[in-house]
Amino acid sequence: MKCTRCKEPAEVKLRAHNSAFCRACFLFFFERRVARAIDHEKMFVRSSRILVAVSGGKDSLALWDVLASEGYQTVGFHLALGIGGYSQRSRERCESFAEKHGLELSVHALADEGLAIPEIVSATRRPACSACGTIKRHYFDAAALELGCDVIATGHNLDDEAARLLGNVLHWQTEYLARQKPVIQPRHEKFVRKVKPLYLTSEFETATYAFMKRIDYVVEECPNAVGASQLDYKAVLDRLENTSPGTKAGFVRDFMVRGSRAFEAPATERADTGGTCAGCGMPAFGTLCSFCSLRAEVDRKLALRTRSVSPAVTE
Amino acid sequence: MKCTRCKEPAEVKLRAHNSAFCRACFLFFFERRVARAIDHEKMFVRSSRILVAVSGGKDSLALWDVLASEGYQTVGFHLALGIGGYSQRSRERCESFAEKHGLELSVHALADEGLAIPEIVSATRRPACSACGTIKRHYFDAAALELGCDVIATGHNLDDEAARLLGNVLHWQTEYLARQKPVIQPRHEKFVRKVKPLYLTSEFETATYAFMKRIDYVVEECPNAVGASQLDYKAVLDRLENTSPGTKAGFVRDFMVRGSRAFEAPATERADTGGTCAGCGMPAFGTLCSFCSLRAEVDRKLALRTRSVSPAVTE
Repeated sequence: MKCTRCKEPAEVKLRAHNSAFCRACFLFFFERRVARAIDHEKMFVRSSRILVAVSGGKDSLALWDVLASEGYQTVGFHLALGIGGYSQRSRERCESFAEKHGLELSVHALADEGLAIPEIVSATRRPACSACGTIKRHYFDAAALELGCDVIATGHNLDDEAARLLGNVLHWQTEYLARQKPVIQPRHEKFVRKVKPLYLTSEFETATYAFMKRIDYVVEECPNAVGASQLDYKAVLDRLENTSPGTKAGFVRDFMVRGSRAFEAPATERADTGGTCAGCGMPAFGTLCSFCSLRAEVDRKLALRTRSVSPAVTE
Repeated sequence: MKCTRCKEPAEVKLRAHNSAFCRACFLFFFERRVARAIDHEKMFVRSSRILVAVSGGKDSLALWDVLASEGYQTVGFHLALGIGGYSQRSRERCESFAEKHGLELSVHALADEGLAIPEIVSATRRPACSACGTIKRHYFDAAALELGCDVIATGHNLDDEAARLLGNVLHWQTEYLARQKPVIQPRHEKFVRKVKPLYLTSEFETATYAFMKRIDYVVEECPNAVGASQLDYKAVLDRLENTSPGTKAGFVRDFMVRGSRAFEAPATERADTGGTCAGCGMPAFGTLCSFCSLRAEVDRKLALRTRSVSPAVTE
């Protein structure tokens, strides 16, 4: 197998692109692909200050690596979720990556304010991934504000986007479909836009990049992901990709080109900018933003639990 | 396991409906479900004369059985595709079903006019399923006209519809999505509407109905279906249905309720009624309808082949 680009022996085969690459040409291919996504979707420019949301996994660290080595101004932001050893190891990977490359990293630990994911789940009985999503959105927005960033970049890859698209389509979640884009414009002037530079880069490609660039990342999946329908969607998309390489990229790309606009609300129907959250002062569409509603729910449930436990102990 | 309806021992379990039924209650459930689809989607009324397109498989014969036993006026129409023993057996099943129930059946054999599917495929190199679709549309429309029917009913079941929907969504075929409905209105006044009364009835349910009603049907799949992506889509939907019963029904139903309208073209953009085919006199949007174009292509290719073979023989 020869490299499609330079004819030297190839190290990696990409069926979806009907190509094979040697190490140098793969890195060139990967970086060019990310650069094109950034430019084509007008994600950010050279003068932007980019908050890179890093989990410690291969995708977000690969993204940070590409952006930093391309000379973009980045600040890493890691939200420590408090999910036992998994979160501990994730944080360490982010910290050692930042240190090794001399990059700025900001870490916020949920446990410090009694909001570790397992505690929230046990208090509210909400699905972990849903609570985690609400919390991440809040802290990413808040960190971008605090750290003076113009844009938030996340490591969502093609497999993530295809699986999310399939889930949205299986339930015809038209509101989510309207907002599933590589660039999500903020709903309020205080927020910054969110971008996904890896949205056309497969999980296999980011893993290969991370391997070639010797990035030390957390390999294990989040323990809460077990049984999540997202993994089921990924499995069936893998099956279709296997029979027909390029299925995932076509699904996501054609959605952007042809499908997406079908779900766009007319300008007059779009939600307006809303008000300010009475809890945290961030923009909100009700009295409280969804994060502060969740936090209030946690506080209420924990207080109830303490009250119902206390009498048996004291009486 | 007890029958959800009458508490007698159940014979069949339907996970998607979280129900189990004895034989009598299953038949009641199945027939009511089909009746509701017919009424809810305004497919036809008691006075309609319905052309039931029967292939000899379980779905179309189950449909004919339900409609005839509910007292609807039906005419069976079987298009003999000329695919060897498979087509022979399919035709026999339709004929014996019609005879057993004293129902009117019209049969048209493609081989009689040199248009058997294998010959078309060999002459044009078109994919079999695509050529077959064009031909079926033509003969179903023509038969409805000739036999004075108001509506064409086909046996497409939930699994067929879900797989087709998935295929259309994976490629974001917005035009096909706009037309994927349980009732397809004709594009020309000469044509009649096409309806799918089994569109919310799963393959498993129609197979169970056919078994319970002792319908003798062709079990084998069309030999041309091997390797068709439709089968892949069915397999992945089966997997999702298995983890989360009701996935297929939700996918198709929610599409009708929420998704479908996103793809509807504004009234002004809809294709107008077009003209008449110079070949067969049926409505067409070009000079020739797609069936007559296909037929002309077959004739042309066969003539070329004869010419290129003849000299060697005669000279």
